[in-house]
Amino acid sequence: MALFAKEEYLERLDKTKRRMADAGIDVLVVSDPANMNYLTGYDGWSFYVPQCVVVGLDADTPMWIGRRMDVAGARHTTFLPLSHIIGYPENYIQTRARHPMNVVGDVIKEHGWGAGTVGVEMDAYYFSARAYAELQKNLPDARFADADLLVNWIRLVKSDAEIALMREAGQIANKVMATAIARLEPGVRECDAVAGVYQAQMSGTREFGGDYPAIVPMMPTGEKTSAPHLTWTDAPYRSEQMVNLELAACRHRYHCPIARTAYLGKNPPAKLVKLAEHTVEGLDLTLAAVKPGMRAEAVERVWRRHIADVGLEKESRIGYAMGLNYPPDWGEHTASLRPGDETVLAPNMTFHMILGMWMDDYGFECSESFRVTEDGHECFANFPRTLFIKE
Amino acid sequence: MALFAKEEYLERLDKTKRRMADAGIDVLVVSDPANMNYLTGYDGWSFYVPQCVVVGLDADTPMWIGRRMDVAGARHTTFLPLSHIIGYPENYIQTRARHPMNVVGDVIKEHGWGAGTVGVEMDAYYFSARAYAELQKNLPDARFADADLLVNWIRLVKSDAEIALMREAGQIANKVMATAIARLEPGVRECDAVAGVYQAQMSGTREFGGDYPAIVPMMPTGEKTSAPHLTWTDAPYRSEQMVNLELAACRHRYHCPIARTAYLGKNPPAKLVKLAEHTVEGLDLTLAAVKPGMRAEAVERVWRRHIADVGLEKESRIGYAMGLNYPPDWGEHTASLRPGDETVLAPNMTFHMILGMWMDDYGFECSESFRVTEDGHECFANFPRTLFIKE
Repeated sequence: MALFAKEEYLERLDKTKRRMADAGIDVLVVSDPANMNYLTGYDGWSFYVPQCVVVGLDADTPMWIGRRMDVAGARHTTFLPLSHIIGYPENYIQTRARHPMNVVGDVIKEHGWGAGTVGVEMDAYYFSARAYAELQKNLPDARFADADLLVNWIRLVKSDAEIALMREAGQIANKVMATAIARLEPGVRECDAVAGVYQAQMSGTREFGGDYPAIVPMMPTGEKTSAPHLTWTDAPYRSEQMVNLELAACRHRYHCPIARTAYLGKNPPAKLVKLAEHTVEGLDLTLAAVKPGMRAEAVERVWRRHIADVGLEKESRIGYAMGLNYPPDWGEHTASLRPGDETVLAPNMTFHMILGMWMDDYGFECSESFRVTEDGHECFANFPRTLFIKE
Repeated sequence: MALFAKEEYLERLDKTKRRMADAGIDVLVVSDPANMNYLTGYDGWSFYVPQCVVVGLDADTPMWIGRRMDVAGARHTTFLPLSHIIGYPENYIQTRARHPMNVVGDVIKEHGWGAGTVGVEMDAYYFSARAYAELQKNLPDARFADADLLVNWIRLVKSDAEIALMREAGQIANKVMATAIARLEPGVRECDAVAGVYQAQMSGTREFGGDYPAIVPMMPTGEKTSAPHLTWTDAPYRSEQMVNLELAACRHRYHCPIARTAYLGKNPPAKLVKLAEHTVEGLDLTLAAVKPGMRAEAVERVWRRHIADVGLEKESRIGYAMGLNYPPDWGEHTASLRPGDETVLAPNMTFHMILGMWMDDYGFECSESFRVTEDGHECFANFPRTLFIKE
């Protein structure tokens, strides 16, 4: 029932174990829901309770450990045999008396790893300070190693099967952005425009449906464009204003983010039109420069030089690795297109390149999600790169 | 610009400080986004980077500390003066070299609390193991105390202004559930029915719009009803099947969850119809029993006795406190309607009571979100309690 062939999961596990061996880790506790999905197929909205995948260096098959009521979901979505799906009882939920990580600690001991080196994802969203403290309590003889991002770095290069899903997400992204721009009108409430975006995200195309993106739609206008993470209100859009559209589509948890800027009205300021031209030109140029073998920082340099030529500069990060993910972020927290990032680009690495230029009272942004190919790049969506003017 | 009057925030802070004093805490680091919102008004999708509110026992005004690009959002949504909004620079984001909690530690030291007792929310979703380790590193002279749920317990009793928002969420919930049931037809893809639900959640009513709920819509059917946290697929709904609808509406981050069961077809099994009758009867009875002064566990007992009379039993928790929240959960993790919970009900406590009965191959669920009143209860939504049969 898992989404990919079993061989693909085994290959991912093999890569994980090689990194574990290099880091001297005997057993890895994977708490990041995207990493759990990557290694086993597990997909469910259950990350609001502690759960993990346990990978033993000397074990053929990993174990899923989660809430007992989610065992059926693990059977449905993973390639694991039932013997490797472990449910903890309901009295471990939301109590100070015990914690699900106590069960995880016991399982690790039962498998003879209790005096070994235990890797944990120290900065993963759903691995709380208490989860770590409880695990330490149950494993007094273990050494702990920070294995944060160990699996994320493997995720950076996608398989062809993963790329196929990102192309589907790209097709949905085209519909999502088209819907957003169609819905934007002076007088339309922000919440109603966002409602249309959600509808498009989930309905997807005639051939395949959409999944919930890891971040909600962002469509700020007016003075709120300077506060990038505020969500929508009931206020109507007004005319002669610009709107930032930071959206995405998702297919089986694989994302295609897409950003554009629209102007509501007949008279976009000339300086905005000019800025849009420079930015789109820079996006075109920078994407065209992408090649395998190039460093991530070198991609950013192309952009920086371009805008310097027109007398502008911008804070440095212009993109980041992304793909499989869960709320609250679709970014993979590994490679970034920014100065100092020496990651060497390779085929099937996937990024979101987002170029945003913010002046005092106006701005413009445009983005593309793409993979690195054998000799360049391939964008997942196919949507005009321009300032959209809605008269 | 904050949602509630400044006095309301100050009252919440006052209650927080009283609990801090009782627990011997000099300074509290609040990481839970709902608690941050509760104490300051802060509302943004920025919890994917470390951020917090710092409450000093001897300080009049708390501090918001977050990413520099979110300072504008904090200015827009909180009652805090600019002097109490602190942004850390971009080079603290997603790097092993430094961590935003280092900034938090320094701020705590600068205010003279570095040798005091620092309260942290050990099991909050976005307070990672590393966040805690970094804070400890920066505050070698501090004592740390687990302040998990300290603010959550204050949130349990809502103000009238909060209740007003939950009533609005209830009105949206009516539309959300009506939309879901209207969309369900054999042959309709699950993703398209879910798309309609999202549209209804955000569009809200003519008078006010909706906000994103903390959990995605759950509308499983067939064998997936036994796996409660799997999300939708592209598969069409089939006839002669039941569908569980676990939905919600949200207004300014305040939730009204609502669950119902529908049957697609003309011939619901007699045993399902019977089960629905018993369950709805139990819901009616149990809600009618709710009174201030009663213990949470006593509410559950009313339900348990009712179903025992018809020869059934169920796992024990039948409800939980809820209200203001962010993904991944709308529950407050405090009081539950379950055996052993001695919380004494008081006016304006708000709960989601969800009664689900699961047999081998069929089941039924029905829920209400309500507040405790001076002499009983008030439901936020107003939707028929029945098995919906779509012929």
